[in-house]
Parts: sequence; structure tokens; C-alpha cells
Amino acid sequence: MLRCTAAAATSETQGKPIECLGAIAWEAKKPLDVTTIVVDPPKKGEVRIKIVATALCHTDSYTLDGFDPEGLFPAILGHEAAGIVESVGEGVTSVQPGDHVIPCYQAFCGDCGMCRSNKTNLCGRVRAWTGKGIMAADDQPRFTHKDSGKKIFHFMGTSTFAEYTVVHEVSVAKINKEAKLDKVCLLGCGVSTGIGAVLNTAKVEKGSTAAVFGLGTIGLAAVDALRDVGASRIIGVDTDPSKFERAKEWGATDVVNPKDHDKPIQQVIMEMTNDDGGGGVDYSFECIGNVGVMRAALECTHKGWGQSVVIGVAAAGQEISTRPFQLVTGRSWRGTAFGGFRSRIDVPKLVDRYLAGEFRVDEYVTHTLKLKDINEAFDLLHAGKCLRAVMYTDA
Amino acid sequence: MLRCTAAAATSETQGKPIECLGAIAWEAKKPLDVTTIVVDPPKKGEVRIKIVATALCHTDSYTLDGFDPEGLFPAILGHEAAGIVESVGEGVTSVQPGDHVIPCYQAFCGDCGMCRSNKTNLCGRVRAWTGKGIMAADDQPRFTHKDSGKKIFHFMGTSTFAEYTVVHEVSVAKINKEAKLDKVCLLGCGVSTGIGAVLNTAKVEKGSTAAVFGLGTIGLAAVDALRDVGASRIIGVDTDPSKFERAKEWGATDVVNPKDHDKPIQQVIMEMTNDDGGGGVDYSFECIGNVGVMRAALECTHKGWGQSVVIGVAAAGQEISTRPFQLVTGRSWRGTAFGGFRSRIDVPKLVDRYLAGEFRVDEYVTHTLKLKDINEAFDLLHAGKCLRAVMYTDA
Repeated sequence: MLRCTAAAATSETQGKPIECLGAIAWEAKKPLDVTTIVVDPPKKGEVRIKIVATALCHTDSYTLDGFDPEGLFPAILGHEAAGIVESVGEGVTSVQPGDHVIPCYQAFCGDCGMCRSNKTNLCGRVRAWTGKGIMAADDQPRFTHKDSGKKIFHFMGTSTFAEYTVVHEVSVAKINKEAKLDKVCLLGCGVSTGIGAVLNTAKVEKGSTAAVFGLGTIGLAAVDALRDVGASRIIGVDTDPSKFERAKEWGATDVVNPKDHDKPIQQVIMEMTNDDGGGGVDYSFECIGNVGVMRAALECTHKGWGQSVVIGVAAAGQEISTRPFQLVTGRSWRGTAFGGFRSRIDVPKLVDRYLAGEFRVDEYVTHTLKLKDINEAFDLLHAGKCLRAVMYTDA
Repeated sequence: MLRCTAAAATSETQGKPIECLGAIAWEAKKPLDVTTIVVDPPKKGEVRIKIVATALCHTDSYTLDGFDPEGLFPAILGHEAAGIVESVGEGVTSVQPGDHVIPCYQAFCGDCGMCRSNKTNLCGRVRAWTGKGIMAADDQPRFTHKDSGKKIFHFMGTSTFAEYTVVHEVSVAKINKEAKLDKVCLLGCGVSTGIGAVLNTAKVEKGSTAAVFGLGTIGLAAVDALRDVGASRIIGVDTDPSKFERAKEWGATDVVNPKDHDKPIQQVIMEMTNDDGGGGVDYSFECIGNVGVMRAALECTHKGWGQSVVIGVAAAGQEISTRPFQLVTGRSWRGTAFGGFRSRIDVPKLVDRYLAGEFRVDEYVTHTLKLKDINEAFDLLHAGKCLRAVMYTDA
């Protein structure tokens, strides 16, 4: 067993367990324990990745807070990262040691029933295992806590809060080596999700009007994509006015704080967009995970054709509701996961488009830390102080 | 003032009030009063129609039962009918006396903001008046109760439970004279709605799977359209097994009675359609107006791409709900009004397609009555004994 160093030394580590730092979530609502873990070598159809940079996303926090009914403990959280392939298991052909990659929590195999449908990005190939925190080859996790010898579960099929991780080959997107890993890690979740909700799920057309609820990373990425497709009006909605300046910089034409109004926000937006058809935006995006906001987002869209896309993840057990009249009069209520992008195919293209300057990524990184200080990142997130805190695994 | 006879005598009646039979709903939950009414001549932009045949639809019953928050009394109900133009008001050019027409509760003007959008059939031109039971030219109804002199409101802009009615020109579809009026009256609502939900709203493709909840006229029309587009599986769902034989005749490949199962119907359908993506139908249609069924209809669709279309009208104040996860995992919840058809443009085409044998219409007429016996039709409807009762206005 080898103690890994900052530079992945493939020939030395290949086929052997690696000892390295990992942040273990032993139980809900407790800080992570940054400690030494043992990462087994990749088995058939698996890839071991040296994580270079990992960001903290709300879903990690949501799970650590115990809101995810599927949440398993102990686990290594983290799902928005980038790294370098250290070694590959038997039969892996799509990547090789040294490749720069983004681990994708939504796999894409290309030949399961879901992938073959060509109607969804929700590949089902490894879902049964990633949902249980284990790997498909042998129903076991690849992480062990060194001191206690306890097995540690994977999370979302990615587990990026560690110096090394093991993922299924179908969950690895090989990307352009020119891209900075501490920036494009954000394309592993938030930024891609916001962009994709606009481009793939809603397919917003030039000249459309839109409202974006929640101006964090996903909401801003949606604003960025809306500006890019030429939306004529982009209404940013947030209860924290400190987010408005940035939203305008990103492309919001209007910003609204629901707290500034006595009437429901859907009515405020209806009135802001009033036309002879009664008002309402063509598209709306819920980027928070609040079921009340999801309802407002639907009800502020235009009669006849309004589309509302749920992006945020609500707490377990919570439900959305509305009067069915909202749908019968032509609105549609949809949702998106990973912005509809087929991860392994589309993430590399997103990286290239980012390199070509098509959309923002760097600007979401408001804080950088070391992996060992990861609990500070959770504090920043909870305080609403950051868009994305990126952690470097280098000691 | 002239007492009208069975044959519309245009030259005699034009420009004058007409005395004729009309069924007045004086108040909610009371039988209709078939009595003599006075129908004013059409004003600017209006058309007076001699109704030849009118069917009873659930929406009439729903309003009479007091469930419609917009329901006004006293009113002349009825919105699924066909007739002959008796006379036209100033400026009316699209129809002339003698034309065979279907009054359409959903207008289509072609040049309001909604119509110009080309994204919806929900013309807003006369909505402000039809919602209040009056005509746009002078904010007044055209009906008077002869005995009391009381003004009687219009209903849905159609009011077809009378020998004569007055409607806005934008609500009149001129149809092929070869069509039997006592059959194509059904294209004024139910049959068109069921067909359109499949063809226009969901745009179901050949080989798709579908579930239809509620096997009344709308549900059967949806089944008919699904069969026509080549759906590979059409699951009819109803709690009344007496409807199953007809559903199979129409094209249902499977029929399910939720009462035969201990588990929720959505789970039953998921299991019936199980595949390696988890099961579920590609499309579902709620043709009842029950919010619990609307939820089941959404939740029985396939992860990744399932679409559920709400067609039924729920009682005032009722709400639909589900876990947002249903949407985030790729299902979409939509609705349809008049099946997405642009009434004045599309109803004439539907009549032609019916004449060409493309879909069933005659078969929905299970009972025929005289207008004077209209309360019997309500009884038949409430007892679940009929698909459509068609009433003739001839004495």
C-alpha cells in the first residue's frame, strides 16, 4: 500500500490500494472527518481518478443535513470535481491513465433502454448501485477508513471529497487537457445544469421572456444561457438583494425581491410582463428546491404556452401543488436533471465551448480552500457567502 | 316578434327578436326550466344560430351543480351543438344565413396576442365577455325570459340549450353541409378534445404506449386517436367495468379497474409496462376531472420522457400535487383545452375528416331526446348510463 503524493505516480500505484486523504461523513448533521482512507484499485469497468479540484454543491450539503432519503452513512460526499485518471480496471477503453476527466453523477452508457430511447439523459445502467453507494462489479464500496477498517459508501457514483476516488467507466467524461481542472470541475453539476435547463429542457428561443428563481450558481448559469440565446427579458428573483448586482452583470434585465411586495411573486411577475394575453413569462426556472417557489414559478408563466422547469431538489416528502386549471390553460410543468446533458458525450463539448468563451465558469469560483478545510466550505455555503468554494486536494 | 317554427325562416325573422324554447338554469342544483325565451337579433360581430341538435357534456352538469366558480345564473347552458345560421349582425363576413355551423366555446379570432403567438388555441378576444355571460357589442345578454322579462346570461359564449342562440362571430365554425348536424355537434367539445389531446397536445408518435383514465366520450376519443396514430399499447382505466368492452372495441389493448388492485393504479401500470428503464407509459391522459387521478396519471408515465395531459376539469378549489422528483426525473405535466384545436380553423377540418371516416363520432350518441326533455339527459349522465345524449330542438 502506498501513500500517494501530489503527483499521481501511475506506475507505482496501479493495481494497488492507495492511502490518501478523504472527507468522511460519518453521520448526518455532523462535520466531515478529514482522515486517511484506503482507496481500492478499480475493478472491471471502473476508473480510479486522482481528484485535482472539487467544489461544494448544495446537494452535498442537503445530504449531510439528512434531507436525502437515499442518503447513506458513512460516505464520502462530493460530485462536482475534475481530476486525472490514475488507473483503469479490466475492459475500460474510453479513458486511460493520464486523461483529464470530470466524474459525472449522472452516467451515460449509450446502450441501456434509457440511453437508446434518445429521449432522456437519465441512463439507468449503474443507478441501482450508485443509489446504494456501492460499485457494480462486486456490490462493494472501494473506500475503507484506515484507522477503523470500516467500509465507507460512495455518494452519487462520484465521491469527490477525497484525493482519489473510484467511479464506473460510464460515469467518466474525458475532457480537453487545456482546460483548468479547478475551473471546469463546475461543469460536473451546477453550471451545466443551469445552462442545460435553458438549452436542452426548455429549448428557449430568441426573444423569449423568462424568470429565474434563485440567483446562486445554477440560477446564474441559467441567466447566462438565457442571455446567450437572446431572451428579450430575464427576470432574476431572489430574497437576497446582495445577489442582484451579479445577476445583472450576468444578463438579468430585471431583478425582483419577493420581500419588497405584498402580493405573491407570481402576480408581481404577471404584472411586470402584462400584455393583451394576460401577462406572464414564456419560461421560468426554479433553482432553489423550495416547493412554494416551484408553484410560483409555474404560475408566473404565460397562459397558453408557459413552461416552468424545476431544477432545484426539494427536501424529502415535500410536494408541489397547483390548481389543474394552470395546466389546462396551457402551462406545462417540467423538470431537469443535469440540464438534460448526456454526461459522457456532452461534458467534453461543454468544456470545449467554455474554452471558446461561450459561457462563464471561472466567475462562479468565489472561494478556494484545501480539501482538509472542507468544513469551512460548508459554513460559507450555509451563510450564503459563496457561489462555489473549490477545494484543492494538494496538501 | 315572431314565434319561430322548426324551419328557420330567415327573411321573416331577420332583425327581429325570436320567441322560442330555451332551457333556463335559474339556479344551481335545480332542474332546467324549459320555457319560452326571447332571443334578440345579433348585433355587430354576432351571429344568430338556429340550433338543430345539442348534446349534454359534463361541463354543463358541473356548472349546474354549482362547481364552476365562474358559473352565473340565470343562464342558458349548453356548448356542444350544431345548427344553421339564421341571421348575422353588422360586419359579419365569415358566415351567412343558411350556413351550417358549430358554435365553439373557445373562440379563435386570428389576430389577438394569443392567436398571433401561434403557440396556443386560447384566443382571448371575447373571453372577458363570455366569462361574464354577456356579448361584447353592448355588455348585455341576448336572452330574455318571456314571462318575467328577466335577462338571462349566456354560458361559455355558446348557450346551445335553446332553439336559437346568439354567439360572437369569432366563435362560429362554418362546416360542410354534408355532415349530419345531430352527429357533428359532438365535435363542438368532447370528441375534438379527446382527439386533440393526443394529436396536438401530446403529439403521440407511432409505437408509443399510453394510458387513458376515464372511458367516457373524451377518453374514448383519445383511445380512438391513439389507435389511429399507431400506439403500441393503449391502457384504458376506469372504475366502471361496463365501459371496458366498448373501450376495447375503440382500440384499447388493455383495460384496468383500479378497484381490482390493492396497490395504487400508477404502480399497477408501472408493473404492466415494466422495462429496463423502470416501466411506465410514454403518455397518459386524465379525462375525468379528479385531482387524485391526475396525480396517478402523471406518476404512471415513464421516467425520462413521460408526458401526462390533464383534460378533465376539476371542481373549484381542488389542487393537484406530486413530489417534484417526478418532474426532475423527466416527466412533464401538461393540460389541454379543446384539444389544442383552433376552433374556427380546425373544426371544419375535423368535420371533413369525420366525413372521410378517419375517426368515430356517430358511435358516441347513445341516446336522443327532445330539447324539452333535457332534464332526462342530466339524469342519464348522472347515472353513468350514456356517452352522449343528443337533443333535437324540433318540437
